[in-house]
Amino acid sequence: MTKQVATNITWHHGHVDRQDRNRLLGQRGATIWFTGLPSSGKSTIAFTLEHALVESGHLSYVLDGDNIRHGLNKNLGFTPEDRNENIRRIGEVAKLFADCGVLTCTSFISPYRADRDQARKLHEAAGLPFIEVYVKTPIELCEQRDPKGLYKKARAGQLAEFTGVSAPYEEPLKPELVLDTTELDPRQAAEAVLTYLKANGLLDKP
Amino acid sequence: MTKQVATNITWHHGHVDRQDRNRLLGQRGATIWFTGLPSSGKSTIAFTLEHALVESGHLSYVLDGDNIRHGLNKNLGFTPEDRNENIRRIGEVAKLFADCGVLTCTSFISPYRADRDQARKLHEAAGLPFIEVYVKTPIELCEQRDPKGLYKKARAGQLAEFTGVSAPYEEPLKPELVLDTTELDPRQAAEAVLTYLKANGLLDKP
Repeated sequence: MTKQVATNITWHHGHVDRQDRNRLLGQRGATIWFTGLPSSGKSTIAFTLEHALVESGHLSYVLDGDNIRHGLNKNLGFTPEDRNENIRRIGEVAKLFADCGVLTCTSFISPYRADRDQARKLHEAAGLPFIEVYVKTPIELCEQRDPKGLYKKARAGQLAEFTGVSAPYEEPLKPELVLDTTELDPRQAAEAVLTYLKANGLLDKP
Repeated sequence: MTKQVATNITWHHGHVDRQDRNRLLGQRGATIWFTGLPSSGKSTIAFTLEHALVESGHLSYVLDGDNIRHGLNKNLGFTPEDRNENIRRIGEVAKLFADCGVLTCTSFISPYRADRDQARKLHEAAGLPFIEVYVKTPIELCEQRDPKGLYKKARAGQLAEFTGVSAPYEEPLKPELVLDTTELDPRQAAEAVLTYLKANGLLDKP
């Protein structure tokens, strides 16, 4: 590869075309936007999907609380205003990743319809696919799982502005996909997304 | 490719290892941080490098004013505080791209040493290569080029906080590379960065 760079190089000014990167990767950059209640299973499904994609030769990357809330958005809290800015920034970053050719999964509660629609508009205006995936898990089941004990804390009044308990979750009206986790385990849910990506040509070389 | 996904799929939970993405791409994700005065030639060099990389089969992406200032950072101005937050966010986003395996070029004046050092620290703490490239162009030459007429406006007092005129530029003390554009044209400058990337194994399959 090093030799190839040295000998076959073509020098250009100006921007690389998005399609050049898509061709290089053999896929179409897109954002797969997971939304749902806390503990609904968004991240588990997103990471399962990412694994399957990378192992089959596709570049995928998950943006989630771990790499965003502790980094880019560490100066934001949980007020409605900060939640809005949180999702705005994530939408912008996902758009950059999709433009770069990456099958980008975002895994955030993203409870407000208007915020998700803003992220969608950003992508659509740039001609980038935006796939809203609603991880539909009844709150009773989320609360039963509650791996981090957050529902428990929220019910005890120790957590303010907790989605589903003391802050609203607005269900998507027209998501590209609904994953009913009372019927699908994480693998089956990831498989459903994969099927969608394939059916829509996102895993094909453009 | 579609068939491969359907039949050879391996299902895993948890995160994809960074090295898996690097192996897939045949390179090591890294941030190439261009810094220099306005009109010093940063973006021209960055886009020339990006082109050469993509045409030789390497995934590269440029973060610059066009895709950041009008998107992620559109709610920031040019006060010292906002410049600091501007570069902080860019450092975080570049880190995510590098983690994803991309040879990420950032093209921003990034005038403050402390801000650049913060971006470096972020990367180094995550075990990601950070290559600071100082595009060294005498201010007289930048001002002579002045493609957008910004120096002219700044000299006329129509632009506040303009780096090199009414705001400071702090030269890098220990950049990985210095590109003296009085000696190198954009192609030669990009070639120098490419040589550095090759010499440091960033274009090899890990």
